[in-house]
Amino acid sequence: MNAKQQIKKVSIVGAGNVGHNFARAFRQAGYLIHEVYSRTQRSAMLLSQSLNTDYTTDISKLKKDTDLIILAVNDDALPDLINQLTIKNIPIVHTSGSTPISVFEEKDFIHYGIFYPVQSFSKNETESLEPIPICVEANDSETESLLLSLASSVSTKVFAMNSEKRKALHIAAVFANNFTNHLFHIADEILRSKEISFEIIRPLLEKTAEKIKTETPLNAQTGPAVRNDRKVIDNHLEYLKSNEEYREIYHIMTESIYNNQKKK
Amino acid sequence: MNAKQQIKKVSIVGAGNVGHNFARAFRQAGYLIHEVYSRTQRSAMLLSQSLNTDYTTDISKLKKDTDLIILAVNDDALPDLINQLTIKNIPIVHTSGSTPISVFEEKDFIHYGIFYPVQSFSKNETESLEPIPICVEANDSETESLLLSLASSVSTKVFAMNSEKRKALHIAAVFANNFTNHLFHIADEILRSKEISFEIIRPLLEKTAEKIKTETPLNAQTGPAVRNDRKVIDNHLEYLKSNEEYREIYHIMTESIYNNQKKK
Repeated sequence: MNAKQQIKKVSIVGAGNVGHNFARAFRQAGYLIHEVYSRTQRSAMLLSQSLNTDYTTDISKLKKDTDLIILAVNDDALPDLINQLTIKNIPIVHTSGSTPISVFEEKDFIHYGIFYPVQSFSKNETESLEPIPICVEANDSETESLLLSLASSVSTKVFAMNSEKRKALHIAAVFANNFTNHLFHIADEILRSKEISFEIIRPLLEKTAEKIKTETPLNAQTGPAVRNDRKVIDNHLEYLKSNEEYREIYHIMTESIYNNQKKK
Repeated sequence: MNAKQQIKKVSIVGAGNVGHNFARAFRQAGYLIHEVYSRTQRSAMLLSQSLNTDYTTDISKLKKDTDLIILAVNDDALPDLINQLTIKNIPIVHTSGSTPISVFEEKDFIHYGIFYPVQSFSKNETESLEPIPICVEANDSETESLLLSLASSVSTKVFAMNSEKRKALHIAAVFANNFTNHLFHIADEILRSKEISFEIIRPLLEKTAEKIKTETPLNAQTGPAVRNDRKVIDNHLEYLKSNEEYREIYHIMTESIYNNQKKK
């Protein structure tokens, strides 16, 4: 099935980071953004103006003459929105890593599924979906084919993946992306407190990223925790005693690294 | 002061990752590796053979006709080694981020200091020191000049930095490098358990690294913790309940991200 034959008009529900990026990427790929929805007038207007399309803040009034509805909202907001949707005969997808396909069940939708991009978007940045892995799931094989074709029209990395696997993937992404970024923030804060530029550790970060292209992160591990260098570890914990939160993160990460190396 | 006029022969104490890389990089930069020391015969021989130089396993017998002694050993091992060294009139440095310069005090050394590379080395990989930041400290201005000149002969990024700042830098590097790598390992383990390739999250990792070139990690943060998306967070914690260690890391990182965003 060719998505471009079946889908001309796409409605985007949600004007956050994913909504913004999807709207622009789908338009770029030749789809018409038919309408956007946001809970608040301001963000609905902002997105619709940037796309020169219509908007609504009333989900029950979403235009019925669309070909695909993409729910790009927080997981918390998904069930309520789904309950309020009156359009049942149009293919509908959500973009969440963590919410299973069962969120659509017993709501009288005919074709539904998931369209999960493995990326962390920024609102203020237009980004091609082309290099971004898209994980697809659907309630029937017809819809799965449609979504796979749709995904292939915007990305070169398309996967069919069930809800259980997708959840594991999302958790792994939170560890490898969000938590990693937080460690960069902690490093940044420690460096700033001594007026040291973050640039001085950048070669180290590049090395870390480079290493795991050829070896597993477990084998690539270095540092005081792997060597169980208690003198350094205690010294660092002592330094961090003014920040209980960071001290605790240091402690638990060090123990976890050491435990994992022992298991090797 | 020009290091190459004053230093011809370098003795390397320690045959670990730093010892291996320093020996090769200094030789590459035109210095003679005069002798290597390791506690164990096997590793001393291995390194000395690869460099075609002499070795010893008795630190008190280190050759006296050298121009610089580089102590590239674990922090734990430093004080004992320093106590056993009988050569006092040759400039001596250690390469540790965490050990202060005071480790050399009251031991009758004339010129001493620190030569700390902000990098995580692998033993099996020859690496140029050229792009690697080197932080230098010394007990007098003459030795500082010598070490700055020496550092500049192997690296393009040379900094004079006192022990207190260097300690903060080392702690920041542990967070941004070792702990980050451990998060990659956890992600890898979660993905493997569902037979998902690590490759699927690689574009995400590249984005994370790319983002912090233009914005602070604090502003670049995304994900359920920033949004305080309790439904996703609880869902993930539930998934991780079979691994108390990873569940605890997820919990503490999530709370810390949320706390830091509130402070913005």
